[in-house]
Amino acid sequence: MRGVVLHAPGDVRVEDRDDPRIVAPTDAIIRLTATCVCGSDLWPYRGIQEIDGPTPMGHEYVGIVEEVGRDVRTVRPGQFVVGSFFASDNTCEICRAGYQSRCAHARPVGESGTQAEFARIPLADGTLVATTDVPDADLIPSLLAASDVLGTGWFAAVAAEAGPGKTVAVVGDGAVGLLGVLAAKQLGAERIIAMSRHESRQKLALDFGATDIVTERGDEGVAKIKDMTGGYGAHSTIEAVGTQESMMQAIRSTRPGGHVGYVGVTHGVELPGMELFFSGVHLHGGPAPVRRFLPDLLDLITERTIDPGAVFDLSLPLDRAADAYRAMDDRAAIKALLRP
Amino acid sequence: MRGVVLHAPGDVRVEDRDDPRIVAPTDAIIRLTATCVCGSDLWPYRGIQEIDGPTPMGHEYVGIVEEVGRDVRTVRPGQFVVGSFFASDNTCEICRAGYQSRCAHARPVGESGTQAEFARIPLADGTLVATTDVPDADLIPSLLAASDVLGTGWFAAVAAEAGPGKTVAVVGDGAVGLLGVLAAKQLGAERIIAMSRHESRQKLALDFGATDIVTERGDEGVAKIKDMTGGYGAHSTIEAVGTQESMMQAIRSTRPGGHVGYVGVTHGVELPGMELFFSGVHLHGGPAPVRRFLPDLLDLITERTIDPGAVFDLSLPLDRAADAYRAMDDRAAIKALLRP
Repeated sequence: MRGVVLHAPGDVRVEDRDDPRIVAPTDAIIRLTATCVCGSDLWPYRGIQEIDGPTPMGHEYVGIVEEVGRDVRTVRPGQFVVGSFFASDNTCEICRAGYQSRCAHARPVGESGTQAEFARIPLADGTLVATTDVPDADLIPSLLAASDVLGTGWFAAVAAEAGPGKTVAVVGDGAVGLLGVLAAKQLGAERIIAMSRHESRQKLALDFGATDIVTERGDEGVAKIKDMTGGYGAHSTIEAVGTQESMMQAIRSTRPGGHVGYVGVTHGVELPGMELFFSGVHLHGGPAPVRRFLPDLLDLITERTIDPGAVFDLSLPLDRAADAYRAMDDRAAIKALLRP
Repeated sequence: MRGVVLHAPGDVRVEDRDDPRIVAPTDAIIRLTATCVCGSDLWPYRGIQEIDGPTPMGHEYVGIVEEVGRDVRTVRPGQFVVGSFFASDNTCEICRAGYQSRCAHARPVGESGTQAEFARIPLADGTLVATTDVPDADLIPSLLAASDVLGTGWFAAVAAEAGPGKTVAVVGDGAVGLLGVLAAKQLGAERIIAMSRHESRQKLALDFGATDIVTERGDEGVAKIKDMTGGYGAHSTIEAVGTQESMMQAIRSTRPGGHVGYVGVTHGVELPGMELFFSGVHLHGGPAPVRRFLPDLLDLITERTIDPGAVFDLSLPLDRAADAYRAMDDRAAIKALLRP
């Protein structure tokens, strides 16, 4: 099969690779209908996160089940499935509490890479959710978004306790931040302030339910949010970047007793204890337990209540993966879908 | 009046000072019935926190209202009152959300020092709670505890979401940690693991409701908590120290999706972003909004449901404040009450 391999920073190749096969009886093999490039794929692409030799890429996926191991009970060949980027058993205490991404048996799906024609999904019963029917083609981007960016933005909004009567600030205008806006809107937030200085992203934020746009960043961005909230700060802040600046911007934008939901994979972040202590905020985040939200998100998508697939502003054949990475790295594209 | 002044690390003196007087129309002057030394007073006493010249000490207090400013409505001379260590208006949005310690007009009561015969309490209506009657003498230590250590331990337990079905780990066996045990018990926690290696503190923890004692610290303490919780970690962890080691011990002792309530005033703490991200815990804490809990805590004390005053294992006249500081610094006393 064809699959994406990162050889070195900036060096993305689409190569012939061995077809994956069932290894454990709980595995499923899926034929990818669509996959995509994640903001977190850009960390190794940019050389900020080291790789240990050629690395198969990708962890977002939707597709048709091709084959299942003998212990798989809840999905069968021919079904269309969406899964999380972390495989989980969905039965341990941590999963039952809704934290499948930190399942006692969690494994990153990215090990074998989903930017490919086929992928092996471990712990299929606890990881994959099948749709009732094979969905219409125009729903594919939205279902693919559910696999990571929508699920992650949704978790951020839940972690930030976005809801009725709340003012929600969103730090980060990538796909996750934008879908955090969508989630906050669906959760009933009163006011949603998207922090963005890019016109196309501002427009999408407004489409998704943002009520205000703030173009300032850092201390100026914080001051602006305070100005807009009676000096108190937002009730809820979504952090969807993962840098020191964005984390501090999120914490400082939030009122005492408010909630910061952070989902940007942190790189080089050190939180100053004393400032955090006196901020009085609630801090919660980490790798999103997408599996918790998948059943509800698939319903919202198939009922056409939400259209998270709008974050894909570039769609390319798998063989042009290098162009997809480049476009996202340049911020020419918000998010690139790949068609195997 | 007589009052405690810290002149330099280790140099505690009881001196003649000016009586406080009403400055703002929202002030009250109280005659202290009892006051005490806080674990946080030991930071400047030990020279870890710098002082800027001779500093009046103390922020915990109960007493009789002596005089009130012309705008004070809810307390009157002759009443017995308990107040928080942060003065708050109790009317702003932050106060109404239950975060009075971060009130838009919050002021530390410690500015004028309550280790004295009299103290000026700003924003009396929003800060003080009067008891129905002047309480029996044996209740004074418990009522004094409500002013800070009980309210702080209670907030930690609430922030850690201690409750029915939960296993709660408590890092720190000072008065706040011990009262965190008491709070977790009152909130209905199923299992309460006190981390302590001091016999007298272990005994008090058990009296307050601890079900288990763990003497290991650091990585060994974390491993022990994991062992006791099916490998997952505690649902709820109370952090009541404020050092790098204790914060990391608390975070690492908590299962993904669990809650860390931290109330130890952090000194030199830097939280590593990546580890926090993958821990998947909820982190909440800061200066406790004691005022939120005072009415309920006073009821529990005057009904004799709880006896938080048991943390005072040393009681001295105010003039012997230096001995009280020394005993707490040596850990010879858990907490020292001072009688003005």
